[in-house]
Amino acid sequence: MDERIKKQLDFSLEIDKEKNILRQTHITDYRRSENDAEHAWHMALMAYLFKEYSNTPIDIAKVMIMCLIHDVVEIDAGDTYAYDAAGLSTQKEREDAAKERIFSLLPDDQKEEMINLFDEFEEYKTPESKFAHAMDNFQPLILNDSNGGKDWIEHNVSSKQVYGRQIKTKLGSEKIYQVIDEILQKNIEKGSIKRDI
Amino acid sequence: MDERIKKQLDFSLEIDKEKNILRQTHITDYRRSENDAEHAWHMALMAYLFKEYSNTPIDIAKVMIMCLIHDVVEIDAGDTYAYDAAGLSTQKEREDAAKERIFSLLPDDQKEEMINLFDEFEEYKTPESKFAHAMDNFQPLILNDSNGGKDWIEHNVSSKQVYGRQIKTKLGSEKIYQVIDEILQKNIEKGSIKRDI
Repeated sequence: MDERIKKQLDFSLEIDKEKNILRQTHITDYRRSENDAEHAWHMALMAYLFKEYSNTPIDIAKVMIMCLIHDVVEIDAGDTYAYDAAGLSTQKEREDAAKERIFSLLPDDQKEEMINLFDEFEEYKTPESKFAHAMDNFQPLILNDSNGGKDWIEHNVSSKQVYGRQIKTKLGSEKIYQVIDEILQKNIEKGSIKRDI
Repeated sequence: MDERIKKQLDFSLEIDKEKNILRQTHITDYRRSENDAEHAWHMALMAYLFKEYSNTPIDIAKVMIMCLIHDVVEIDAGDTYAYDAAGLSTQKEREDAAKERIFSLLPDDQKEEMINLFDEFEEYKTPESKFAHAMDNFQPLILNDSNGGKDWIEHNVSSKQVYGRQIKTKLGSEKIYQVIDEILQKNIEKGSIKRDI
């Protein structure tokens, strides 16, 4: 087995650990926490299904691979809940170290490509990264809504917090944002999300 | 919310059930069974990483979406183990009914597109479907090998059975087949796979 394919295999086995990184979101019927691999699968598939709603034309292959790898750093850095202020303050430092270690398992050209994709996602500037982020917000939201908003209730989440996060969804898709707004309003009405704005 | 996006949402929630469909393969360290969503994520990501080894040029977006949806029918039909002869005999009928029910949740144009992609994968004729199948074989194999071949041992799998399945990998990628052959020979040598050819 040559060195190149051996490195690609080492990386492929390393990322298997994403299946053990649990998120705050629960799967359908609130059976158990979702893990990063499941989230990435769901989000990449939704990116394909909802691509017609992107504000600007997108390279869907790029969006999908971005979705598939965007949480790889959590193998070392762990999942940081969207509304955990303390965790968020150290998130970048933890994720930078993880990014360097994990992508270094790949051959140099693929390490560079994956880090560029990862950084593009984080920087939130290109149409692809904006749409991928919209999916990163949309996917847990539809699960949470289908579970009666239990994840919001458990974390005592306020309307200011959810809108603070979702406002960026608009940059990727006005249409998806409208749907999200409708779902959020419903959950504020019924008290799953605290009304504070 | 308009009818089209409502259908796309219904489908997106329905496929969440893939996270509950357990496969025979175990994740790293043999911690637990892998589920269909995790497998699809892993396989789509590997398709992207290993795409340089496809025998013929491929549309990687098509391969990735094919990987992401290829097990959707198992929500109704269940997972059929690669070496379960009885299960395999009724697999097509069960999966056809599931395909019709599940993809009918989508708007008509997307139902047609997804069924076409699903059928293309099953028919094993285009370069994309051959490469996606190579990944469908390769991904569980590297996990199983990393776990000391325990899944093969548990199912008393023979070299004839594994080669019967892997021979098709060659159609997608000669290079990946060589790597698989190397891994299989190692497992036959150490007795994880029964030698019968």
